[in-house]
Amino acid sequence: MKTQLMQAQAGVVTPEMAHVAEEEGLSPELVRDRVAAGQIVIGRGRFNDRRIVGIGKGLRTKVNASIGTSSDICDLEHERRKARVAEEAGADTLMELSAAGDLDLIRRTVLREVSLPVGNVPLYQAFCEAIQRHRDPSRMDPEALFDLIERQCEDGIAFMAIHCGINRFTIERLERQGYRYGGLCSKGGTLMIQWMLKNNKENPLYEQFDWVCDILKKTDTILSLGNGIRAGAIHDSLDRAQMAELILNCELAERARERGCQAMVEGPGHVPLDEIEANILLQKKMSSEAPYYMLGPLPTDVGAGWDHVTAAVGAAQSSMHGADLICYITPAEHLALPDEADVAVGVKTARLAAHIGDVVKLRGRADRADMQLSKDRRDFRWGDQFRNLLFPEDARRILESRKSVSGKGCSMCGELCALKNAETTLNRHLKGEKRNTAPAGVGTD
Amino acid sequence: MKTQLMQAQAGVVTPEMAHVAEEEGLSPELVRDRVAAGQIVIGRGRFNDRRIVGIGKGLRTKVNASIGTSSDICDLEHERRKARVAEEAGADTLMELSAAGDLDLIRRTVLREVSLPVGNVPLYQAFCEAIQRHRDPSRMDPEALFDLIERQCEDGIAFMAIHCGINRFTIERLERQGYRYGGLCSKGGTLMIQWMLKNNKENPLYEQFDWVCDILKKTDTILSLGNGIRAGAIHDSLDRAQMAELILNCELAERARERGCQAMVEGPGHVPLDEIEANILLQKKMSSEAPYYMLGPLPTDVGAGWDHVTAAVGAAQSSMHGADLICYITPAEHLALPDEADVAVGVKTARLAAHIGDVVKLRGRADRADMQLSKDRRDFRWGDQFRNLLFPEDARRILESRKSVSGKGCSMCGELCALKNAETTLNRHLKGEKRNTAPAGVGTD
Repeated sequence: MKTQLMQAQAGVVTPEMAHVAEEEGLSPELVRDRVAAGQIVIGRGRFNDRRIVGIGKGLRTKVNASIGTSSDICDLEHERRKARVAEEAGADTLMELSAAGDLDLIRRTVLREVSLPVGNVPLYQAFCEAIQRHRDPSRMDPEALFDLIERQCEDGIAFMAIHCGINRFTIERLERQGYRYGGLCSKGGTLMIQWMLKNNKENPLYEQFDWVCDILKKTDTILSLGNGIRAGAIHDSLDRAQMAELILNCELAERARERGCQAMVEGPGHVPLDEIEANILLQKKMSSEAPYYMLGPLPTDVGAGWDHVTAAVGAAQSSMHGADLICYITPAEHLALPDEADVAVGVKTARLAAHIGDVVKLRGRADRADMQLSKDRRDFRWGDQFRNLLFPEDARRILESRKSVSGKGCSMCGELCALKNAETTLNRHLKGEKRNTAPAGVGTD
Repeated sequence: MKTQLMQAQAGVVTPEMAHVAEEEGLSPELVRDRVAAGQIVIGRGRFNDRRIVGIGKGLRTKVNASIGTSSDICDLEHERRKARVAEEAGADTLMELSAAGDLDLIRRTVLREVSLPVGNVPLYQAFCEAIQRHRDPSRMDPEALFDLIERQCEDGIAFMAIHCGINRFTIERLERQGYRYGGLCSKGGTLMIQWMLKNNKENPLYEQFDWVCDILKKTDTILSLGNGIRAGAIHDSLDRAQMAELILNCELAERARERGCQAMVEGPGHVPLDEIEANILLQKKMSSEAPYYMLGPLPTDVGAGWDHVTAAVGAAQSSMHGADLICYITPAEHLALPDEADVAVGVKTARLAAHIGDVVKLRGRADRADMQLSKDRRDFRWGDQFRNLLFPEDARRILESRKSVSGKGCSMCGELCALKNAETTLNRHLKGEKRNTAPAGVGTD
């Protein structure tokens, strides 16, 4: 199978590229050129509606929802419902991250439940099986790992987080710096480090990186270069261990690109609000603008219970500065496995944050809804407002719960509504258009 | 009565300045010097515990909760409960913004319900009374307005948002620019514009600004220079009308300072995420760093129903760049009068946002909790974690609802917990301290 990347490099505009171009208001050739340059990846759902999702430079920031079982909470129906909730709430991609139960069954069930591109982390299953078989994750068999990756790709996994950037060099940097206030918080990354230290071997996913690419290319599964050393505390942000892994992941993104395998790089974790821009700048420079998949980031460590909001703050910032795919964080983060309600809240807050960033990053291509909504609000076209709101049903529920009886505004200001008084007083001055505003460009960005 | 500002200018460290210094980890002299320079204001609750709250340069970013009736929802007990909820959720100040009912009674009731400094907007009552008496807000009597301000100060109002910066110049800028995509959204500001146009008179609060200051000085009520032309749409941000008012408000802050009246400046509204920094820079430069009281800001217009999150994104950004007091936004914003649950959510999200900004703005003085929490999380000291979380009860509720039975971590990762595996594998490497880290300064900033 020729990957989207290989076809783009051969000058072909595929139907998928044309679809992304159409959806994002860009020219097909621009999308093709960016796919060819490894700056845009295109993922596809493999069942149902087979949603096509572009991730990368100049595109709307996408939102990923992660679900999956743990050894504590393991219920196939629960996972099926969470997958549906995530899609209904507006996620662009879904990660199936189960670490307990019949992992093949759960994966195949979830894949068929949604139309979204589904991603996963093959190391979870590899280590779970080693634990089941040998009660020892360090007995994970690399040969079996590569087979497993192939099987998961064949099942229809659209993108795969693989921890290739952890190697002896990275671990040495971690040891030499001698601290980690938040410890390590990547499950797959930490298990791989354990495996390497116990077996005194290099990471097979790094050592045989070309093999990883070649497996993924067969199904055009996107390689998402896992962030195994990510910071779990703001005081660990931009430390040398994390930067070492980022360097390697950016190098590997380039190598994957040259091999025809679509790739993106994963990042943060916990990052103070003023360090997010630098983090993204580094990733973009070192990878020649490979798509950046951001977990959070969380700009404080003390928000547990409200970390969907903490992450929204970080995600808006990262979206503005160039992150391309945002992984949601739910209110259960740091505390428990998310339930269906958590999934819905997580997706909504991440979508809101992504849009806030897009208003800046994409300007006219992203903020038309804001402009129209504002005019509709100003002019009391309540019905029209709901067309441009991100969450019309939630807004309607609040509006209807406490309707205004005294004015055409809402119950917040009642008769003193400023919009109403401004309309009466200054109507003709307020309803003009800003002069000399260039029209929003279509076809370029 | 000598105001805090007058005493500071005379070189006196008042008990209030000493209290603020103690609470914020600064030297009393530094606080005094900044009060003298008009860069810190100090407000006090007037009843119960009489909470003392410092707002301004180098201090923790404070959070205001606004409550109050409207012509649609008007219930004294409801207001009393909202006031209590706001204080319990951790607000630093409270604004009583009622615009319907027995306004004197509501104000006095709310003032006695909390220990926080309580602010208000005198124009609401002035215009409400004009509407009641004459069915016409343009018949508001300026003499009565000044009497009302004096009476409200005597009741114990600690800070007062007064729309002094709207004048003929400001309105002319608004008319000349000829557009406002979000209309006007300040109740008091719009009513004042209406009054000026109808009566063809200058704004008495601008014209007789010294009188305003002299009234407030008698009770050391802080003048909060109202933001009457604030943008209600991101496309109106940094427009000429808004900037005209900001120029005047900064000029008036200086005049108030020179007259011995404590003053702060109010700002945004709706502002795209990348324009917040410039907005604050302008206010700080033009006012010689008067405290900046920020409403929101909201960096998108399409978030109704989730605008507490929209505002958290903006508030973290503004807190980071120098905003000193953040007004919360609740999930009911743009839709309905907030209820008790909305108030609690609004306060919590604003506190979280303020802290995220403080981590950057105040560094070591703000992020110690983050550092300790991260170590406690890393080392599974669950009980200790709750001491440093912003919302320990909410976190505990989620944790307890789905406890881990399989590991010492939580049910999210169960047996695959990365923290646990990292501890087993790399313990001695992870538990050091970062070398050459200067200790967090106390007494300076």
